Amino acid sequence: MQPSVATIIVALNIYLQVSNALSESTPASQVCIIGAGYSGLATARYMKDYGLNFKVFEGTSFIGGTWRFDPRTETDEFGMPLFTNQYKNLRTNAPTQVMEFNGYPFPEGSVSYASGSCFYKYLLSFARHFDLVKNVQFRSHVKWVEWMGKSWNLTYLKTDTNETVTEKCAFVVVASGEYNNPYIPHFEGQELYKGKVMHSHAYKDVEDYRGQRVLVIGGGPSGIDLGTQLANVTSKLVHSHHILKNFQTFNPPNFPKAYINKPDLKHFTPNGAVFEDDTFEDVDIVIYCTGYKYHLPFLNHLSSGITATENYVLPLYQQVVNINQPTMTFVGVSKTTFARILDVQAEYSAALAAGRFNLPSQDKMLRHWLEHAHMLRQEGFKITDVNSVGHDELEYFEDLHKEAGIQRVPFVFKALTQFNIKNALEDLLHFRDYDYKIVSDTQYERRHNPRKEECPFDV
Amino acid sequence: MQPSVATIIVALNIYLQVSNALSESTPASQVCIIGAGYSGLATARYMKDYGLNFKVFEGTSFIGGTWRFDPRTETDEFGMPLFTNQYKNLRTNAPTQVMEFNGYPFPEGSVSYASGSCFYKYLLSFARHFDLVKNVQFRSHVKWVEWMGKSWNLTYLKTDTNETVTEKCAFVVVASGEYNNPYIPHFEGQELYKGKVMHSHAYKDVEDYRGQRVLVIGGGPSGIDLGTQLANVTSKLVHSHHILKNFQTFNPPNFPKAYINKPDLKHFTPNGAVFEDDTFEDVDIVIYCTGYKYHLPFLNHLSSGITATENYVLPLYQQVVNINQPTMTFVGVSKTTFARILDVQAEYSAALAAGRFNLPSQDKMLRHWLEHAHMLRQEGFKITDVNSVGHDELEYFEDLHKEAGIQRVPFVFKALTQFNIKNALEDLLHFRDYDYKIVSDTQYERRHNPRKEECPFDV
Repeated sequence: MQPSVATIIVALNIYLQVSNALSESTPASQVCIIGAGYSGLATARYMKDYGLNFKVFEGTSFIGGTWRFDPRTETDEFGMPLFTNQYKNLRTNAPTQVMEFNGYPFPEGSVSYASGSCFYKYLLSFARHFDLVKNVQFRSHVKWVEWMGKSWNLTYLKTDTNETVTEKCAFVVVASGEYNNPYIPHFEGQELYKGKVMHSHAYKDVEDYRGQRVLVIGGGPSGIDLGTQLANVTSKLVHSHHILKNFQTFNPPNFPKAYINKPDLKHFTPNGAVFEDDTFEDVDIVIYCTGYKYHLPFLNHLSSGITATENYVLPLYQQVVNINQPTMTFVGVSKTTFARILDVQAEYSAALAAGRFNLPSQDKMLRHWLEHAHMLRQEGFKITDVNSVGHDELEYFEDLHKEAGIQRVPFVFKALTQFNIKNALEDLLHFRDYDYKIVSDTQYERRHNPRKEECPFDV
Repeated sequence: MQPSVATIIVALNIYLQVSNALSESTPASQVCIIGAGYSGLATARYMKDYGLNFKVFEGTSFIGGTWRFDPRTETDEFGMPLFTNQYKNLRTNAPTQVMEFNGYPFPEGSVSYASGSCFYKYLLSFARHFDLVKNVQFRSHVKWVEWMGKSWNLTYLKTDTNETVTEKCAFVVVASGEYNNPYIPHFEGQELYKGKVMHSHAYKDVEDYRGQRVLVIGGGPSGIDLGTQLANVTSKLVHSHHILKNFQTFNPPNFPKAYINKPDLKHFTPNGAVFEDDTFEDVDIVIYCTGYKYHLPFLNHLSSGITATENYVLPLYQQVVNINQPTMTFVGVSKTTFARILDVQAEYSAALAAGRFNLPSQDKMLRHWLEHAHMLRQEGFKITDVNSVGHDELEYFEDLHKEAGIQRVPFVFKALTQFNIKNALEDLLHFRDYDYKIVSDTQYERRHNPRKEECPFDV
């Protein structure tokens, strides 16, 4: 039966009412969250807190995103790419106290540097505590998000049935993660090298490399972590990086004998690599610990109003809001080392979707964004760090708190985050042998307490 | 039936192939130029030079844009807004030698500072010389430009018949001008003031103000021009501005007795205004010479890939190319005082449409744009000058020349442009009493030659 004209008009009116929801400070009717990792779960929790209807679209059969361990490295049982980079023996590089969701702490007495598997269990426990899983639609791989003038069309592939489905969303939160597009730089002679070449995202277990000669390229968190782990089991661990100031010349760690520090790579040979100091090392395996690029193929379309390339996602107000269509927000494109930023951006998104505050005009948001981009360069950030929050995270939190009435983040979180980085550089091999405890908004306690972890979350 | 993944992938490939048309150096099949003013005509000329099919969409019945004099101030015979700001007695504020289209000079011996009406005739003569008018479609007011995935849909209103028509374009050049959206700032008590209030865009003839008490607000080109003109006929000419350094304290001109210099306006009263120095002046008429804001309502849609507000048009590569959909360019959103920039941007657009060069990747264009925006702030530009070319126009020209193989702009044009500005500030009431002649790429001659203009163009 065809609907009558009257029905259509009534439907249209309701529809139009809905589409102007935000400017009238009416809550969004259907919030769509892309991704059920740390950021997506944080967002779901606040959407629920703010009383909104929401659904989380998750490509895999699991929550937890990059924190879930999967022995497979490339694709899952449905042939879809795997977005997890966990490995055995991973331990967090910051105390859980600064990685927790707001108001959902690890129990007192827990080991401060949790194992990856324990942190994953923490995510599961959080999702259960807030009863979020029933709002997650699994095996729904988002392919396309398009603004239709009044609402978003979100198109996803049901990976188990190969069906393509489109749903309407009044509000979209992109929380698909920063760690799903491995970046491998190009070096001269790369094609000549005959050994195994891989990216850290496919690293699963240190035991796989016992007795081998391994070259680790890169000095970021994964390069440092893999380099130090692998040196305990490999016959030779060559670590090429340019963070000399941080851990070669300044208080160098007592690495195992197998560890060899090298400057940047100059060129490959069939059996190994030559470095900037013109020395050569022969190796069996090369592991690129060279990080990730943005990957938002479902937005590579003009109608989202967002320009997304491998290095840039813009223009975003407060590093969260799509300035061209503010019914879309992003949680976690800030390349942050301060996990609380994700929780704050999640709450800010929910407050916006709930109509709890009004955004400035598009012109004013653009000015704010351009000023921020300029400030970042003044502070010494790279041009590709345009989505960074900047050095003053607390000022950022304070701005968002004042604008949207959301959580206030006490100073102690930043103090502990910063101390942890300093402590790690000072004592790279042992900085995790401490427990921390938040005592007040300005104070934390530290206790030397090396021990085996007993994960407090059982799932 | 739902499309299969394979169908989507095939469709996507076709889409990418089409959208990459330009990078394959194939000329655009149909170029649409919006506006037949200075920038639109310059663009048309190069599209013709490069052998492309093109059409110019012009809202009025005339070419010449803001250079045409029209006694009406608001709307034309079809009720459409008038985009012309000419007034009687206007003379160019730069020598024609630096305002001419490349290779189409005023005849030797012409007065260097042409009247507005003569410069308008020059535009007509240029259009006739290059036989451009037959490619102009008049009374076609562009309402909407939208990327359809493979080409642009350009929708315009036929102002004489009220029909709305949509045409396909492979390439769009936006040349609709910077001077069609008058900006009036807000001052305290504005609503109390009982006299006449207007914007300089409606100023037509100095004689309309004879014997009146006039307040001119603003110290840009129109404020300076109207202030000095009006002081000769008004009983009182109050000029409020903040360019003291330029023409109050440094070599102040010998203004007529009626001229009164004032700092910024503090607040209005029913009969006049109080200024920052707490003095009061009673006036009959207030003329805001406060410039223009961007006005690109036909792009206020996500699908153009351009964010256009009253202060920002972005992101543009080389201040010309729509980074998100590089089959669209902009000529003349650079807030320039150096007219040759428009001619260069026009040729750059044509070279791009003709496939004469390849653009960098979207990611690289964004980096270039962000670096440029940062550089502008370093150079002291305002945040709203994000589309400016910067202080080093010659470097800009050189970059475009190298990238696109277009015209080289000799140093002499910049030297003459800069000297003219200095000379105007030094001798505001008489700087137009000189003739200039370009002698070589590095040299020009100046001759004091005050005289009545005989316009060399007869139309």
